[in-house]
This record gives sequence, structure tokens and C-alpha cells, in this order.
Amino acid sequence: MQQRSGQQRPDQQRPDQQRPDLQRLEQPPAPRGARVSRRGLIGGGAAAAGLAGAFVAGHASAQSPSGTSAGTSSYAFRGAHQAGIVTPAQDRLHFAAFDVTTGSRAQLVALLRAWTDAAERMTRGLPAGGGAVEGAPDLPPDDTGEAIGLPASGLTITFGFGPGLFRDAHGRDRFGIADRRPAALAQLPHFPGDVLDEARSYGDLCVQACADDPQVAVHAIRNLARIGFGTVAVRWSQLGFGRTSTTSTSQSTPRNLFGFKDGTHNVKAEQASAVDEHVWVAAGDDPAAEWLAGGSYLVARRFDMAIEVWDRQTLGDQEDSIGRTKGTGAPLSGGGEFTRPDFTMAGSHGPVIPEDAHVSVVHPDHNGGARMLRRGYNFVDGTDALGGLNAGLFFLAYVRDPRTQFIPIQAKMAKADALMEYLQVTGSALFAVPPGAGAGEHVGQALFT
Amino acid sequence: MQQRSGQQRPDQQRPDQQRPDLQRLEQPPAPRGARVSRRGLIGGGAAAAGLAGAFVAGHASAQSPSGTSAGTSSYAFRGAHQAGIVTPAQDRLHFAAFDVTTGSRAQLVALLRAWTDAAERMTRGLPAGGGAVEGAPDLPPDDTGEAIGLPASGLTITFGFGPGLFRDAHGRDRFGIADRRPAALAQLPHFPGDVLDEARSYGDLCVQACADDPQVAVHAIRNLARIGFGTVAVRWSQLGFGRTSTTSTSQSTPRNLFGFKDGTHNVKAEQASAVDEHVWVAAGDDPAAEWLAGGSYLVARRFDMAIEVWDRQTLGDQEDSIGRTKGTGAPLSGGGEFTRPDFTMAGSHGPVIPEDAHVSVVHPDHNGGARMLRRGYNFVDGTDALGGLNAGLFFLAYVRDPRTQFIPIQAKMAKADALMEYLQVTGSALFAVPPGAGAGEHVGQALFT
Ligand code: HEM
Ligand code: HEM
Repeated sequence: MQQRSGQQRPDQQRPDQQRPDLQRLEQPPAPRGARVSRRGLIGGGAAAAGLAGAFVAGHASAQSPSGTSAGTSSYAFRGAHQAGIVTPAQDRLHFAAFDVTTGSRAQLVALLRAWTDAAERMTRGLPAGGGAVEGAPDLPPDDTGEAIGLPASGLTITFGFGPGLFRDAHGRDRFGIADRRPAALAQLPHFPGDVLDEARSYGDLCVQACADDPQVAVHAIRNLARIGFGTVAVRWSQLGFGRTSTTSTSQSTPRNLFGFKDGTHNVKAEQASAVDEHVWVAAGDDPAAEWLAGGSYLVARRFDMAIEVWDRQTLGDQEDSIGRTKGTGAPLSGGGEFTRPDFTMAGSHGPVIPEDAHVSVVHPDHNGGARMLRRGYNFVDGTDALGGLNAGLFFLAYVRDPRTQFIPIQAKMAKADALMEYLQVTGSALFAVPPGAGAGEHVGQALFT
Repeated sequence: MQQRSGQQRPDQQRPDQQRPDLQRLEQPPAPRGARVSRRGLIGGGAAAAGLAGAFVAGHASAQSPSGTSAGTSSYAFRGAHQAGIVTPAQDRLHFAAFDVTTGSRAQLVALLRAWTDAAERMTRGLPAGGGAVEGAPDLPPDDTGEAIGLPASGLTITFGFGPGLFRDAHGRDRFGIADRRPAALAQLPHFPGDVLDEARSYGDLCVQACADDPQVAVHAIRNLARIGFGTVAVRWSQLGFGRTSTTSTSQSTPRNLFGFKDGTHNVKAEQASAVDEHVWVAAGDDPAAEWLAGGSYLVARRFDMAIEVWDRQTLGDQEDSIGRTKGTGAPLSGGGEFTRPDFTMAGSHGPVIPEDAHVSVVHPDHNGGARMLRRGYNFVDGTDALGGLNAGLFFLAYVRDPRTQFIPIQAKMAKADALMEYLQVTGSALFAVPPGAGAGEHVGQALFT
């Protein structure tokens, strides 16, 4: 393209004149010719920071679930734990795994600082960069722009560290942190039913962006990738359009693409002692990795569903595979959605909840009490090779220790679960999720100090 | 899986007890043990039909845009024109192209009838099938279930016919309709910048499902694919998460993934004479294809964006490529978003709106007055081979005649538009979109009678 950007242009109309969403902020009149940035903030960092408070009011804590999916909710980025874990599951997801392409510890740390700043801004509904989007015609904008005018939309951005950050595929300790690797942070074992695509698996870093508006989630990942250019490369990314979990008792239970309610018996934010027991890594859990206290582990597994086959099963078979009814989500042993399943109740041939039903296989009572906080999403990624829809469930779960809370249950499921007949795992990854960043800190700071 | 579906189960709790969304319908109490279907309708077709009216009240016409994105809006499936064209563009899309795998005209017609019935039901927020979802444990459910409990969400389902329906790749007139092929319905020519993937192009039939909730759009396509099993196979499908157009003056202008407002100067529903002139095929337009009167043509083109390259361009260059400002969307010649661009205004070197700026290249004044109704969506489909996000714009446009309103403009754009430096077209298709189905008719009925 020819270089024309220096040329003079006539004055523009006041940018917010057409935009009712800006008016409710009662911002001061913009000077003629001023440019507008995301959220209608005129000018750079200072003004932006001043207004930001308006958006977080009433939703300041990731730990105080609002249960609303109104676009105006926002969650504080900083806190004891990262947001996006016990935060009421938002409706949409964009998840990305990155490989670190630099060998420089300083560059990696600088990236984590830049990501922290950008994430904090974006979760407030501000542009990724400190300047105005349209600050300087001769520079690339410091925000890509597609979320201008959209509210924070409940955006949370959650960062995780993969095993490769501590020791790469060649065994190298690139960043001098190998001795601080959490003992539980290793590649997941191969499970029966795993048909992993390397291009959908692993990664040195991950970012989970959840929001009630997909454009806001995509905008977040895209800007973090842009900021990381030269330091990290996107290894894989996954969009999810429908949450398959509830992480708060205030939320109604959504449905997965098998058509069943999903998230009924999840660990939920309000169950503080269950969250402490099953989700957060506690001080002392791993003496080599005290930096992870207050954090968690994130399991990411891409389950492709054979939906065309599933759709041809009888209702009875579908319900037997899950162990709950399709309509209400009640256990086959009776009652309502939240009634405890009775695995001992006998039917006309065998237990009324079959032993290979998913909820029987994975239930805590059959797994030494182990639980997990599930936070997965439905996906459809076009068409598969056979002319079916490439649909499935992008399974995300947060656990305090994957060795006891995920691996044995997944292994048992892969072997014994009736659902597996309709599932293939095509992507897999495990990340250690550091605690929340405190004031002035970058995410994961304790790992590097 | 073992066959257990016949076995006796204890009584279930009344299915609607947990579901506030059902209560506002004030439906009669359900009998103990009754099963719930989408929208909480108990039992089969008759009861369903009786209640359906409640959902369309106040939103009866696709031609009366509501402008709301509340999940409760719904649009009538039947009418003079198909819904989903001038209907206010919903936020989410699932689009699918199908190949017809049968050679039987009767089977094709039966499918169109079954699709019409299912589409009418689903756009009302009802399950795809006439029976209850949980009607019969020994049959596959006649709805896949993932939209149970979700409102109509403004769903529209729009059907189109590709050239292959009239004559297949071997030149065969499989369905005895070759002589009724509209003259304008042929594969689009190859344009510079086209790098077409056959697996994302063409198709005998298409279905555009738009809704404010992606789960509802996905549910619609999936159930139509399920119903078509054995008669059609999905050739390709595309999800879109963010609309890039406004089709009603009541809507605010959204943004595409270049970060610019998109849809400003679109043909809009309220401009009745422009819609008649540019969108609807009129009686007499094509004597061989009178069945298409009241219909339209749909162009579908998948534009991959080089967003990583775009993001590194200066703001000035980005704005010069589009011809409008990034903040407000005003033309570079000044004013506000809706000010007419002045292509003659001189800048310091050349016109202030560069001649190769997108809006200059495609503007009606530079194309003999030709316009189109754009209705595209943003997409991100994971990662591309180079570690970037596979992002772009799934361009959809409705025109009265693609030979004058799309092909010459696309050809000019491919040659002369500054935007093309950042674009590649990887999918392409053209469809004739029949008029709306009248009472008792199936979609496209006039083509088969
Ligand atoms: C496509 C894959 C999967 C589908 C469709 C699926 C579906 C479901 C459904 C419908 C329920 C019942 C409702 C609820 O309590 O949320 C459920 C529960 C559960 N699932 Fe899965 N699931 C999948 C994968 C997994 C995996 C990989 C694990 C872990 C290894 C897992 C662990 C659980 C657990 C722990 C529960 C709760 C059981 C209880 O406490 O009652 N699921 N799942
Ligand atoms: C990725 C591809 C494309 C992008 C990012 C894009 C972007 C835009 C933008 C930002 C505008 C200005 C706002 C508006 O009036 O809506 C616009 C206008 C327009 N575009 Fe595109 N466009 C794309 C592809 C196309 C194609 C393929 C065509 C047709 C061949 C087209 C035809 C038009 C027309 C007719 C207008 C309105 C011009 C006017 O009347 O002022 N666009 N586009």
C-alpha cells in the first residue's frame, strides 16, 4: 500500500455523537478532532484509569459471583486467586496455548508484565494498550479495535504455565526455573481413546478468556497474541460457544451437545470448603513450588463427539449412558436435578443407574471423594472428514492435584464409561495456574523471584 | 452399550419444578412422570401447536425488525420473503452447505417439507420434532436437546439452492428442474485472490441459521442435518460469532476483525424501495425461473484475514485502506459515521479518500449505482499453519442479481482494493434463495410444481 498516513484530513465529528453506550458515562465533551478509544475514553492512560472504576463497581471480586450474564458485569483482574476459575462461568470462551519462542528470561518476564497490564485493562472494558486507539496515525494502534464500544462483558483472563516452560522438549531449563516445577506438572499420560493432534495439544503458556460476548473474548486473546509477537507464538486456540458448567449456585444448568444438562453436581463457588479442598493449591502442598499456593491446575481436553451416531441412539440408551434423564437432569434413581443419585437402587436388570453410566463412573463416591471444578465449553469447528459436524466438548477442569483428582478418573472413564463409545480425545494439555497477581505484581511473579 | 432402555425407573420429579423459564408460560400442571420437551411443552404436536402462538406474539413478521437482541424475540418462518435477510442481523451464525446424496426427486421434496416443518418449529422456540423430546425411551429423540430451556433467541433459518441442484457436476438433471435454473445461478467466476478450498466451497443446498444465542443456531443446523441424514450430507459449515452488518436502522454498527465499523452504508430493511430494487428478485426478472420471484441470491465468501500483518500497520495506513476512520467510522472526508463520503476532496497528496480505499472501490457511485445487502459474520477457526489465528470475515450478501451487483464489484475489489493485501478468499458459493413459504407450503415449493 502507498504511504499516505501523514496527510491532512478534515475535522471529524465528535466521535461519541452516535453512540448511546458512551453517553451513560457522562464523560466530558470531547475536543473537536479527538479520537475515541475502547469505552469512549478520550486520550491516554490517565483518563482511562480514572474512569475504569465505574465499570467494576458492584462486581469487584471474582469470588463474589454475580450470576448475571448482562454485558455490563466485570470482574477484578487482581486478587488472591485468578479470576475465571470460580467466577460464574461466562457463556463464551476463547482459549489459546502459546509456545515461548525466546530463550530470554527477561523477555519472558517482560511479556508476563505486559500481559498482566493488558489483561487488567481489558477486563475493565478498556483497550489493551494504555494509549488511545486512535492516538497516533503513524503508529500501529495499541488495541486492535474490534471491541470498541462493547462493555466488559464479564471478561476474565486466566493464565497458566505448561511443563515446557520449566524444561523444554530438549530437556533445557531455558528460564532457570526447572527446580521450581510443581511435581504434578508433567504431560498427562496417554489414555485409551486419546487420538491426540499435536497441533491441538500442549503449550508452554495458556490463556483462557471467558466473556459473555465472544467478540470480547476473541479480542482479548488476539491482543495478547499481538503483544506477545516475537516472544510467543500461538500453538493452538479453541473457541467455545456454550458453557457446559455452572460454577455458582446462582446459575442455571446449561446443556452440552449430547443434549444433557451439564454442571449439576459441580464444585461451586459458594461451597467455600469444597473449593479450598478441591481447587486451590494450598501452602505446603508442594514445597518446591510454593509460588503456586493459591493457584490451581488446569486440565484442557478436547473431546470430539460422534453426534450423528449419538443422535441415532434411543432416548433410553442415551440416558443410560449418562445416568441422568435428558429432560430434567435428574438421576435415573429418581427425584429432581439436585437429588443425590442412588447407585444401589435395583432396576429390572441391574442397577437403575448402570455401572458404566458416566455419572456412576466419575462420581466422587466411586473415586475416593475426589472432585473437580469443571468449566468446559461446547464447540463446533466446521465439518469433519466424513461430512458430519465437527462438534464436541472442550473439557476444562481446575483441580488442586491432577494426579489424584483427574488422572485416575479420566483413566477409569476411558476404560469403563459408556460415553466413550461416542467420544475421541483430540487435544490435551495440563497447566499450572498461578495465584492472582497482587497490586503492582505481574501474574506468576513469585515464580520468577 | 448394553440394551437397558426398557427397564423400569422410579418416578421423576415434575420436570418444570426447577425451571423458572417454564413458569411464565402458565402451562397446566404436568402429570407425574411426564417428560419435558424444549419449551416445556408436554406431549406431542397438538399441544405444541396450541402454545406456539405465545412465542411469536409481538414479533410476527420478519419484515418488522424489533432491533432487540433479547433472547425472547422470535420471527415468523412463513411470509412473502424468507426471514433472515432483512431481519435485523442477529449476533451469531451457523451456516451449512449440503450436498444432496439421493437422486430421487420425491425424497428431495420430502426433505424440503420436513425441513420446513422443523424450521418453523425451531424458530418458534419449539423442538425440531413434533413429539416430545422425551416421548419414547425406545426411540431416538426427535430433537437433540441442547436447546431445551432456551428461548427462540431471534432464530431465523434461511434456505438456498445451489447450481448443483439443477445440474450436477456430471451435467445430470437429477431432479427434473434443469430448465428452471435461474440464469444468474452459476458458480461464481475465479477472482484474483481466490485460493479456494473445495471443502469450504459450493453446495447443492444451504442453510443460514442466525440467532442471538449460538447454541440455538448450532442446534438448528444440527437438527436439520439429522433430519436430512441419508438424503443430504453436510459439505461444509461455518460458525460466525459477531455480526459485521446492520440490516436495520435500529441497530448500532458492529465491528469486523480489522477493528472497523462494518455495515454503516448497508441496504437496510427500512429502505423499502432500496430493498425492492437491490434485494428481491421481481416477477419478470427471469422468465425461466418465476418460482424465484420474491426470493434473492446469496453470495457466501470466506475471507481469511492476515490479522497479524494488519495489526502491525499504522493507524493511518489502516484507515487509508478502508477510507473511514477507525474510531467513529466517519469517511476520511469528514463528518460523522453517516455523512456521505466526498471522493473528490483533495488531501495533501491525492484525494483524502484514496482511490484504492475499500469504500471508494465498492461505493455505488463508482459501480453504476449497484448495491447489496451485506449480512456477514466474524470468525476465528483456531490457528493457521503459521501460528497465527485463523480469523476473518465470512462475507454474506443478498442481491437481486449477482451478475450486476456482486461479480463486477468483487472483480474490481480483487484487482484494485488496498484491503486485498490482507485478504485471501478460501471459500465461495452462490445460492438462489426462494421466496418465503406460504401457509401449508414447503420452502421452494413453486420450483417443484
Ligand atoms: C464430552 C465429554 C463429557 C461429557 C459429555 C460429560 C457429561 C457430563 C454430564 C451430563 C454430567 C452430569 C451433570 C453434572 O453433574 O454435571 C457429568 C458429570 C460429571 N462429569 Fe462429565 N462429561 C464429559 C467428560 C468428563 C471428563 C473427561 C471428566 C473427568 C475425567 C468428567 C467428570 C465429571 C464429573 C466429576 C461429574 C460429576 C459427577 C457427580 O459428582 O455426580 N466428565 N458429565
Ligand atoms: C474481509 C472483507 C471485507 C471487509 C473487512 C470489509 C469492510 C468494509 C467496511 C469497514 C466498510 C465500511 C462501512 C460500511 O459501509 O459498511 C465496507 C463497506 C462496503 N463493503 Fe466491504 N468489506 C469486505 C468485503 C467486501 C466485499 C467482498 C464486498 C463486495 C464485493 C464488499 C462491499 C462493500 C460495500 C458495497 C460497502 C458499502 C460501501 C458504501 O456504500 O459506502 N465488501 N466494507
